[in-house]
Amino acid sequence: MSFSAAIITLFPELFPGTLGASVLGRGLAEGLWSLQVTQLRDFATDRHRTVDDTPSGGGAGMVLKPDILARAIDTVSPLGDARPRILMSPRGTTLTQARARELALGPGAVIICGRFEGIDQRVIDTRGLEEISIGDYVLAGGEVAAMVLLEAVVRLIPGVLGKAESHADESFENGLLEYPQYTRPQSFEGVDIPGVLTSGDHGRIASWRQEQSQALTAARRPDLLKK
Amino acid sequence: MSFSAAIITLFPELFPGTLGASVLGRGLAEGLWSLQVTQLRDFATDRHRTVDDTPSGGGAGMVLKPDILARAIDTVSPLGDARPRILMSPRGTTLTQARARELALGPGAVIICGRFEGIDQRVIDTRGLEEISIGDYVLAGGEVAAMVLLEAVVRLIPGVLGKAESHADESFENGLLEYPQYTRPQSFEGVDIPGVLTSGDHGRIASWRQEQSQALTAARRPDLLKK
Repeated sequence: MSFSAAIITLFPELFPGTLGASVLGRGLAEGLWSLQVTQLRDFATDRHRTVDDTPSGGGAGMVLKPDILARAIDTVSPLGDARPRILMSPRGTTLTQARARELALGPGAVIICGRFEGIDQRVIDTRGLEEISIGDYVLAGGEVAAMVLLEAVVRLIPGVLGKAESHADESFENGLLEYPQYTRPQSFEGVDIPGVLTSGDHGRIASWRQEQSQALTAARRPDLLKK
Repeated sequence: MSFSAAIITLFPELFPGTLGASVLGRGLAEGLWSLQVTQLRDFATDRHRTVDDTPSGGGAGMVLKPDILARAIDTVSPLGDARPRILMSPRGTTLTQARARELALGPGAVIICGRFEGIDQRVIDTRGLEEISIGDYVLAGGEVAAMVLLEAVVRLIPGVLGKAESHADESFENGLLEYPQYTRPQSFEGVDIPGVLTSGDHGRIASWRQEQSQALTAARRPDLLKK
């Protein structure tokens, strides 16, 4: 059974978006993973198809109504669905490469994209939503965050990346940022590729890259070295 | 002069993507910001329109060629362009709400979307690229990261969010995660909205929300409280 992603959103037309391009799109077409997109508004019950209401206690913005959203979740992910139910939210636990790797090993994910000021807390509580944030900044909606999450996860599904692409040397996979890359031409605006890289000495190349990764990580992300 | 975004990418068809929806799309249509998307491949010089080559020193994947990418950057952002030149990269400085706010006050941004194993370091050095990461995970390409960056920035441009939406109480704006939200119905599956929120006592509501934000931040993101 392949990885099965479901999205609940007010903007279904935004999907697959970046998930439909390049290797991810090819994996989708080949059935290595699947994507189901559901319009939340289809679960509204009034003729205006209302999905939100003003926040209890006052404040700006609108809040997604619990009854409508719960019905959408229960339909997309009925009792017994083993997939984690994820709410993209700046209040959530920050996404890491490790969590992406865990999710890629699982059956899939049901992802709720928030808009407005947020969603009613009672849906989060009763439907056991896992709140995940992609970073410490605020977006206009959860849609692009859902794409980020799925892009990070889906590329780790076996077969999605070709043999030519590798995960081993990537940033975060070994706790370090990736070393600098170079390619032809040998001379670009008078600057040559570092000699070690064209020396053919694989041991020296590996050492140089390790040193570069260490130095870059120490300079930019000392927090990664402390972990 | 409004905020002017330029994107250099191998997948121009992915834009505007989420940037074209809702308030951001309305702001784009109204000229509150602009978006120019450039196909990197148009700057290739051979008949196969090659943009990448194997990494010097060996290794998996392909590296974007410096000459082609430099020509694209120099065309999109000639000498004298005051906009920062940003490379979306997991090796970069992590995006924060503060950096988004700075960018929103500026003239715009020229954003390069990487693919494959990365880009030649000599382009980063000679073109003064600022490397920005949206989080500690690896994506399939920089396109979705560029959308995240622009979504975070563009919604802060005056006039893009309506009066009904506010920034003041959002996560990260005051160093805390946002308090729980509730809306009607009063009773959802037997669970009522917390009484304080329907009390009409604005002082008590404000205190309750502050306590909830503090407790949530302490539980989920103690790192934010240390700052």
